[in-house]
Amino acid sequence: MRTTAQNAQLALLLEVAGTPKPGNVDRHREYPDLRFEQFLAGAVGALPGFELAADGEPVGASFLRAIEGMSEQRGGNTQFGAVLLTTPLVAAAGRGALSPAGAARVVDETTVADAADFYRSFDAVDVAVEDPPEGLEPLDVRRGSDAVPAIEERELTLEGVMDRSTDRDGIAREWVGGFERTFRAAAAIRDREGPVTDRAAAVFLELLAEEPDTFVATKHDRETARRVTERAATARDGDVDPETLAEEFVAEGINPGTTADLVAGGLFVALERGLDV
Amino acid sequence: MRTTAQNAQLALLLEVAGTPKPGNVDRHREYPDLRFEQFLAGAVGALPGFELAADGEPVGASFLRAIEGMSEQRGGNTQFGAVLLTTPLVAAAGRGALSPAGAARVVDETTVADAADFYRSFDAVDVAVEDPPEGLEPLDVRRGSDAVPAIEERELTLEGVMDRSTDRDGIAREWVGGFERTFRAAAAIRDREGPVTDRAAAVFLELLAEEPDTFVATKHDRETARRVTERAATARDGDVDPETLAEEFVAEGINPGTTADLVAGGLFVALERGLDV
Repeated sequence: MRTTAQNAQLALLLEVAGTPKPGNVDRHREYPDLRFEQFLAGAVGALPGFELAADGEPVGASFLRAIEGMSEQRGGNTQFGAVLLTTPLVAAAGRGALSPAGAARVVDETTVADAADFYRSFDAVDVAVEDPPEGLEPLDVRRGSDAVPAIEERELTLEGVMDRSTDRDGIAREWVGGFERTFRAAAAIRDREGPVTDRAAAVFLELLAEEPDTFVATKHDRETARRVTERAATARDGDVDPETLAEEFVAEGINPGTTADLVAGGLFVALERGLDV
Repeated sequence: MRTTAQNAQLALLLEVAGTPKPGNVDRHREYPDLRFEQFLAGAVGALPGFELAADGEPVGASFLRAIEGMSEQRGGNTQFGAVLLTTPLVAAAGRGALSPAGAARVVDETTVADAADFYRSFDAVDVAVEDPPEGLEPLDVRRGSDAVPAIEERELTLEGVMDRSTDRDGIAREWVGGFERTFRAAAAIRDREGPVTDRAAAVFLELLAEEPDTFVATKHDRETARRVTERAATARDGDVDPETLAEEFVAEGINPGTTADLVAGGLFVALERGLDV
């Protein structure tokens, strides 16, 4: 039997192996400076952090350990969002409470120390984020550990940090909303048939067609993210070949990374609930 | 820094991701009953066994644990040979002696208990092997743990078991020959440039062109294995597109699995010696 932490590692691997996953690195597509093999190394390195989370260690420290391990490759940010989404779910599973309510409890119990470790994780890797709202520059995550005094002064918990980002970050929305789309993705993966990576790719398209990807909105703008959603819907409905869409998105530099993160979280939940590989 | 055990896990992942690797499952090719995703799960499951080997636990018990973990997926034998080749190298690295001499010492020190655990690993997974020579039916590995009394009665060490198979098994030949081809593969991988998975695929072709694959000889016959070597040489020399050869081998049911195992072992050694991903 795989452990909870092993299922989290396997979820990262299955996510990146699913193809076609228009715009993202997958088994058939990669970028010169962000390669499939670097996602494999990222998943290898993330495991010890997942083990801490499953063992009941603080979510922030577990996440920091996972990101430090994930970063031991030359591609930079491979799975930051997927690890951020999955870590509280691993913690909930470690308590025997992998449910929306159990995950919400993990989030609710996060502390200022968790928030500080979350900020420290940005020292290990460059992550694309939007500029903070005016007046909140001291809390810019890109400051990494330099921002920790500001976090401590404001007594911000990790839940509080996430709560401030829900308007522009789909991962934060999951954190404070009981991981609604993640659990729905898990059910969709389990309901489908065939190879797990094919199911993951199909569910990726469904999720992308349903709601704009916040990583695309950050990297480009909201209008681009909205149009990506419409184009994903045409592929989901069979009017466009997903492989064609994949080529187009790669050419346009569109990588719906947040949607991929949701699939990774969904795969983890599905594996914990008995999905066979 | 990745641990030694993590490097062994990453080696399994990089090996299966390399493409084209004519005849074997890789990132672009799989069989309906043996899928890419099952190799990912196999690598996830093998790690705890590698951790035992790196920590100085007996090679046989470590190998058994790795194979039990590897087998937690529906594809059956994904990486038996790769794990068998890599485990003594992990043990040598754990002692700070990852060299042909250090690995030979690990092999030399194997016991009857190691041999018994090696046989027990066949309870977890079906492995294609040749019938044993006449009179040696009690030592048929396919008997798994049922053969342990015969092993103990004959006081066979794991080195002794390997020594009896060198004429028909390329992994056994590495075990008793100081892992000569494995260390050579590691050097070839390090000397090349470009993505690691591309290097691994190129070295696979070189190794296959150099010596008949014993898994092909077991599954088909020696003449087929010899012809596969000649065809690999034409691809290595640029006279045939390796992608074409890959399609042909898949169609003919030819999977040079032992050569893939050597690449996995070579990747492990290269990673331990500082290969960046």
